[in-house]
Amino acid sequence: MTERSGGLRDWLRCPSVAAPFTDDALIGAMLRFEAALAAAQADCGLVPAAAAQTIAAVCAEHRPDPGALARAARPASTLAIPLVQGLTEAVAARDAQAAGFVHFGATSQDVVDTALVLQAGAAGAALADLLHALGDALAALARAHRATPMLGRTLLQPAVPITFGWKAACWLGLVHRGADGLARALREAAVLQFGGAAGTLAALGPHGDAVAQRLAAGLGLSLPDASWHGARDRLARLGAELAILTGALAKIGRDVALLMQPEVGEAFEPTAAGRGGSSAMPHKRNPVGAMLAAEAAPRASGLAAALFATLPSEHERGLGGWQNTVFLVADLFDAAGSAGDAVLEVIAGLRVAPAAMQRNLDAQRGFVFAEALATALAPALGRGAAQSLAEAACAAAQARGGSLRDAAAADPRISGALDPRVLDALFTAPAPGAADAMVDRTLAAWAARPRGQPA
Amino acid sequence: MTERSGGLRDWLRCPSVAAPFTDDALIGAMLRFEAALAAAQADCGLVPAAAAQTIAAVCAEHRPDPGALARAARPASTLAIPLVQGLTEAVAARDAQAAGFVHFGATSQDVVDTALVLQAGAAGAALADLLHALGDALAALARAHRATPMLGRTLLQPAVPITFGWKAACWLGLVHRGADGLARALREAAVLQFGGAAGTLAALGPHGDAVAQRLAAGLGLSLPDASWHGARDRLARLGAELAILTGALAKIGRDVALLMQPEVGEAFEPTAAGRGGSSAMPHKRNPVGAMLAAEAAPRASGLAAALFATLPSEHERGLGGWQNTVFLVADLFDAAGSAGDAVLEVIAGLRVAPAAMQRNLDAQRGFVFAEALATALAPALGRGAAQSLAEAACAAAQARGGSLRDAAAADPRISGALDPRVLDALFTAPAPGAADAMVDRTLAAWAARPRGQPA
Amino acid sequence: MTERSGGLRDWLRCPSVAAPFTDDALIGAMLRFEAALAAAQADCGLVPAAAAQTIAAVCAEHRPDPGALARAARPASTLAIPLVQGLTEAVAARDAQAAGFVHFGATSQDVVDTALVLQAGAAGAALADLLHALGDALAALARAHRATPMLGRTLLQPAVPITFGWKAACWLGLVHRGADGLARALREAAVLQFGGAAGTLAALGPHGDAVAQRLAAGLGLSLPDASWHGARDRLARLGAELAILTGALAKIGRDVALLMQPEVGEAFEPTAAGRGGSSAMPHKRNPVGAMLAAEAAPRASGLAAALFATLPSEHERGLGGWQNTVFLVADLFDAAGSAGDAVLEVIAGLRVAPAAMQRNLDAQRGFVFAEALATALAPALGRGAAQSLAEAACAAAQARGGSLRDAAAADPRISGALDPRVLDALFTAPAPGAADAMVDRTLAAWAARPRGQPA
Amino acid sequence: MTERSGGLRDWLRCPSVAAPFTDDALIGAMLRFEAALAAAQADCGLVPAAAAQTIAAVCAEHRPDPGALARAARPASTLAIPLVQGLTEAVAARDAQAAGFVHFGATSQDVVDTALVLQAGAAGAALADLLHALGDALAALARAHRATPMLGRTLLQPAVPITFGWKAACWLGLVHRGADGLARALREAAVLQFGGAAGTLAALGPHGDAVAQRLAAGLGLSLPDASWHGARDRLARLGAELAILTGALAKIGRDVALLMQPEVGEAFEPTAAGRGGSSAMPHKRNPVGAMLAAEAAPRASGLAAALFATLPSEHERGLGGWQNTVFLVADLFDAAGSAGDAVLEVIAGLRVAPAAMQRNLDAQRGFVFAEALATALAPALGRGAAQSLAEAACAAAQARGGSLRDAAAADPRISGALDPRVLDALFTAPAPGAADAMVDRTLAAWAARPRGQPA
Repeated sequence: MTERSGGLRDWLRCPSVAAPFTDDALIGAMLRFEAALAAAQADCGLVPAAAAQTIAAVCAEHRPDPGALARAARPASTLAIPLVQGLTEAVAARDAQAAGFVHFGATSQDVVDTALVLQAGAAGAALADLLHALGDALAALARAHRATPMLGRTLLQPAVPITFGWKAACWLGLVHRGADGLARALREAAVLQFGGAAGTLAALGPHGDAVAQRLAAGLGLSLPDASWHGARDRLARLGAELAILTGALAKIGRDVALLMQPEVGEAFEPTAAGRGGSSAMPHKRNPVGAMLAAEAAPRASGLAAALFATLPSEHERGLGGWQNTVFLVADLFDAAGSAGDAVLEVIAGLRVAPAAMQRNLDAQRGFVFAEALATALAPALGRGAAQSLAEAACAAAQARGGSLRDAAAADPRISGALDPRVLDALFTAPAPGAADAMVDRTLAAWAARPRGQPA
Repeated sequence: MTERSGGLRDWLRCPSVAAPFTDDALIGAMLRFEAALAAAQADCGLVPAAAAQTIAAVCAEHRPDPGALARAARPASTLAIPLVQGLTEAVAARDAQAAGFVHFGATSQDVVDTALVLQAGAAGAALADLLHALGDALAALARAHRATPMLGRTLLQPAVPITFGWKAACWLGLVHRGADGLARALREAAVLQFGGAAGTLAALGPHGDAVAQRLAAGLGLSLPDASWHGARDRLARLGAELAILTGALAKIGRDVALLMQPEVGEAFEPTAAGRGGSSAMPHKRNPVGAMLAAEAAPRASGLAAALFATLPSEHERGLGGWQNTVFLVADLFDAAGSAGDAVLEVIAGLRVAPAAMQRNLDAQRGFVFAEALATALAPALGRGAAQSLAEAACAAAQARGGSLRDAAAADPRISGALDPRVLDALFTAPAPGAADAMVDRTLAAWAARPRGQPA
Repeated sequence: MTERSGGLRDWLRCPSVAAPFTDDALIGAMLRFEAALAAAQADCGLVPAAAAQTIAAVCAEHRPDPGALARAARPASTLAIPLVQGLTEAVAARDAQAAGFVHFGATSQDVVDTALVLQAGAAGAALADLLHALGDALAALARAHRATPMLGRTLLQPAVPITFGWKAACWLGLVHRGADGLARALREAAVLQFGGAAGTLAALGPHGDAVAQRLAAGLGLSLPDASWHGARDRLARLGAELAILTGALAKIGRDVALLMQPEVGEAFEPTAAGRGGSSAMPHKRNPVGAMLAAEAAPRASGLAAALFATLPSEHERGLGGWQNTVFLVADLFDAAGSAGDAVLEVIAGLRVAPAAMQRNLDAQRGFVFAEALATALAPALGRGAAQSLAEAACAAAQARGGSLRDAAAADPRISGALDPRVLDALFTAPAPGAADAMVDRTLAAWAARPRGQPA
Repeated sequence: MTERSGGLRDWLRCPSVAAPFTDDALIGAMLRFEAALAAAQADCGLVPAAAAQTIAAVCAEHRPDPGALARAARPASTLAIPLVQGLTEAVAARDAQAAGFVHFGATSQDVVDTALVLQAGAAGAALADLLHALGDALAALARAHRATPMLGRTLLQPAVPITFGWKAACWLGLVHRGADGLARALREAAVLQFGGAAGTLAALGPHGDAVAQRLAAGLGLSLPDASWHGARDRLARLGAELAILTGALAKIGRDVALLMQPEVGEAFEPTAAGRGGSSAMPHKRNPVGAMLAAEAAPRASGLAAALFATLPSEHERGLGGWQNTVFLVADLFDAAGSAGDAVLEVIAGLRVAPAAMQRNLDAQRGFVFAEALATALAPALGRGAAQSLAEAACAAAQARGGSLRDAAAADPRISGALDPRVLDALFTAPAPGAADAMVDRTLAAWAARPRGQPA
């Protein structure tokens, strides 16, 4: 069992997104680098083919103890030194000569950064799958509820009516841009790190670039213009996208939790045995998906800030500016994965209550149609007078307690301008405004997004 | 005089990048929105053309007192309310009827967010100019010094030799990606915010989308799929790019400051009267450009984190999640602009000291060639034996105090494998490795970057 | 007019807390340092008394242009150099010899850091006044509503009944600890910065410590064990306390905004003409105080993080780790002051709606008394059976739609254990539990807090 | 084996500080809460003594699988629900009636928060031990080197001479204040969390406060004025102190790494087999302790920011604002513990090179004595003339390349005022200034700090 699975923190993880960052998976990725390096060097004639094969064979089987690596890493300043040492010994046990070619020309950071990039790609693909499913579920909500009226709410107060479909489309836009941003950051970060001692591959003499090209190809990565031991911006961008995505997911979760307040009661997380109960209150149904998204967002933001702090890295390899990056990125994928998984469950099973939406609209006694009233009065009376009349009607209704419709009808200046049927229509059917056009564009953009695109 | 110019904080600003965010400029951008809105509505037949012209004329002249706006904004919860109120009064003073069309169908956040986006575009263009100049200066350094050997340094310790041109190319890569990331984020953020009370443009009935299209065109912005009062991700991405760029600039500054330590003495910020002196020490030459970049980076990171915190915004407009965004973004441009301006001055005037670079290389007594020694021995002796011999020679040199070259020559196993001339060459001319290829690719990529591209 | 007043950003400031950090006030504090330094040195016989008097007289009148200082500071790397230069010239215009004693033995950072500390004390005192008033208002609420029942809410769902007085007491506890934490951090930060060129006051020979003691006394500051140019922890602690306080204020604001949702309607921010309206919706009453607190909290957190980043400062004075601190601290006071002022207004004018609280309690159909039911059944039936019965009654009521009381009464196992009057009481009067004891302790602690204590 | 030990991340941990936060230790602390709760309730007559004993006995043996808890926690929204469920079943297997009293009156957050506080106390005690040892080591350095001259450095440039003992004393001051701040935050956070469903202990009727008092006593914690499910400030303060401490430790580490640059060579981390080597460079001696401190600081800062974000928690228990706190605090202790352990090793084994310090001083050609020269000239010539002469001598020496001493001697105005012996002394023995007084005060304060005080 590895450190990052099978423990309490799995609570706040999505298994598929977290899997590439278990200790075993990270060690496996580091060994994959070493095997691919030897193979690339064999291709270039720098390492005997048999030695490269032996190294690959040992890498495929070698399973060092993570705790022992960690203890040895502390004085060594990197996990790669004890890993390479153990690998070299294991290779030597089969073929002493091959052992001399292990890790040839590489530096510790090459191993760790490239392993990180490989695992980020795998975690990103799992996360992209979550986001595809989430986007589809949101698109379905947007289509199904494009005509379901509800209160729009600003600063936690009722504004004017919107539709729930439009709200879902706004969520979808966030997820769409989040998925695009993540894919882009992953694509840009999917570059080999291979620079040797100070970044110039000096130890490989004239062969460095050829080895690097083959190594990149062997690992399915791009070859960057230059090695990047001291240039941490691609990973900072990846961290930023993960934090932004997590924040966007938390926005969806927070909205659902607010709608799920019993006094509001307009949408509910799905129910299931053991889901959202309380140890103290048998009646409790907690918005657990929203909670998981909400906890993840500030955590992700703090991790991204820690990545940003690695940017002013000293010279060709920073003093302390890259060693923990693999863990920071792993934790960022944990946060985004946990939030994505939780919000997908929430949205896929969301119970929408159109009747409650209508009831809450009605409870506003028509005030949320004040703008519509002013707009309807404007052609006849001019905008300024129209607004004044609407405000006066609001004041009258607030003072006397009835509905804005009745207060408006009671004002002869208003009833003179709008006949009762127009007035009724005004206070019944919310004006869609541009909502439908916005929903259509958002849905069309999502539908046009390539499926199954590599992260 | 406005709040954001002419004061102490100008110390930590670049004038050209900061200019779009002075109080006057922000107010001007808000008025530009209002004028363009009326014009777009006139195009759609919603506002009389004369009224739109009057509104535009007043917007062009109206100059409210920023302090008075601020005082009125506190109870109002937004700067836009007193601004629109004052504007309406000013329009009314010319044409009472036109006053009724001021801000028609818009909400406060439409004004503020769109003004922010407009000003971000202007600040971004000024920043892009800085980065172009900086990239060119770095490219010139990379070309001029592609064969200038120096110590590569990792964890603040000597590693193996590199060239200064390669180091400059790595800096250039950071600037190139930073400029690209910024341009992309600005492009994506250059979208109109126009949604009305709750985001659906309900007050404009069926005309909302047509007005929005014309308004976007009038302001030179794109029309987003949907209004984004509650979807703050584009600005979070912009903030992230500004913070990442500032961090990258701080890396360049920090490297220069480390090279400028008198014990190292390999590169120096330009000198000028009054530049980098100390109030207490007449001999002092402080790396003031590096300082300006270094102070900006953590400031920018904290501001980006504050932007990330706005993502989980409540419903259609957050409680406190957007009101300060215009200031956060302004401060981020300040940080990036100050750092960019400072680093450009540093790089454009950098004094490079190749002799000191060579002296510091030589002072390493050949230890930085240990890897090259092992590599040179490997063909004859095998990698394992070669590495052991190189380590033994290092140990001998460390114990006895001479150079590694002499220790190597004294070991018959080494001198048997490498004749003296080969040994001398090994310890004199650093192996370029793949440095030249990396420099070439980086320069070519920079040269291929479109000039004068809009931000 | 100075940069930090009279501009748009005053919107997000409390005037009394912000006043000490205007450009004029900061310049005044720097000049106060210079005057006090000359006086202390005159006391020690290092400076002629007449020169010290001249310096003091010029400091009292000297009013350099902030913008000009800022421009000159950019190449100089600090505001203090042009300030001291201008001051020296102004003194020289009166007395050439006295000019030689300006800033004697001090370094730029001495001036800036000590000015910062002085102004922080002033801003802190203003903020402490706000917090005293806020604490008193909260204590009044806690006393007035100690028996007002309402829903306790956890994870945004109803939990069990609490009292509004208890809720107010919990808010008071936050404010009390926030005020204490701030006072402590200010006390610890109220130390003179005076170290000269590298911190040891070398230029003053054997007199340094005596001058420092007199200077500290003259400015009303403590003398630290050592100068602290490179030790930024006291200011980091101050920043942390300001961020924590702002976060605590945002919690109060957020709670009020949630209670003010019309569907909840249990408490309301005060109303006033122009307060909380919307530019688009005449009926709108926005929780503007809550908004101001909510916007301030993440801003303050980002600023504190920027201060934390200054801790790993290089050697005796960091490269970029202190120059912006005065602005970061000013901005932190802005955030805390704005939030404190806003929340004080909210709490002092809070309209509490006990009837709505009772209605929302009742609307829970008794489910929030499930725990009380289980507790009441436990003595007779055992805890396990009691809990099972309560859960069964909840399930029955949820399935059939009535109240939990009725479902409980319909279960013969429950009605056999609790007679109807006991059952009625159970579902009517919320058990106070330990709420009263908690309220009492919290009020007593607040009452015992020394008034008028210096910050 | 638990999640948080035995894995790769142990690399960046101190075993003694991390031990209280392993999965097993956390589960143990939660069970300790449950056992103590039953015992306190038995004391109050609410639970049969036998049942409490059974619960305690089962708690002492119960060892649930962390991974299984985590999986069950995801739908439940808290680890406590499955933990309590498993515990209840285990108790029921011994005594069905006792099972009914498990977790009586408590809520999930009571268990988790109190467990967190208990473990923070244990981790804090281990960390305090590290800091005591580190402070003692720094005090020893300060005493040993109070007369060892070296360059003071500001903005990474030479300033004026200081002593290494004074530098060490400044480090000691940081550690002293960090240890005090941590102890205070731990003391304030060492309060019981026990509030039941909504914080008022309603389920315990009139007995809640009595149970709480006994429970607090049983666990060695204080009873807070009120429960604090929604008031997260104490933990935010703890997080801030841990981040500030880590930043201070990183400052020490960074200073050492800068001194250890071979071109500077004034102090060195201890050497040991396998310590600080490089996988690519046999000669490399990396400052691994400094690296460990440097990586920890921004990580800790990001974690503290995540804690700050929990402050605006909703109502009586936040949506997502406390669930991850136990992990955030654990990670903060990891960062501080790793940094503390690393810096202790660095300082305890620091190799100081006074000769190199002198050499670097000498290499400044006397410029660092320019201030001293001006000071020495002032009595005779006046401050202004003295400073001008010193500056002229600097300019002459810079132009002609010799030492400032020689340039000064060559200026008849200077040699007329200072005889050669005075001039020699001036350029040889750095003026201690107030350094000794500062060192004495710092050492005395540390010596007066109570040993073995509870955290």
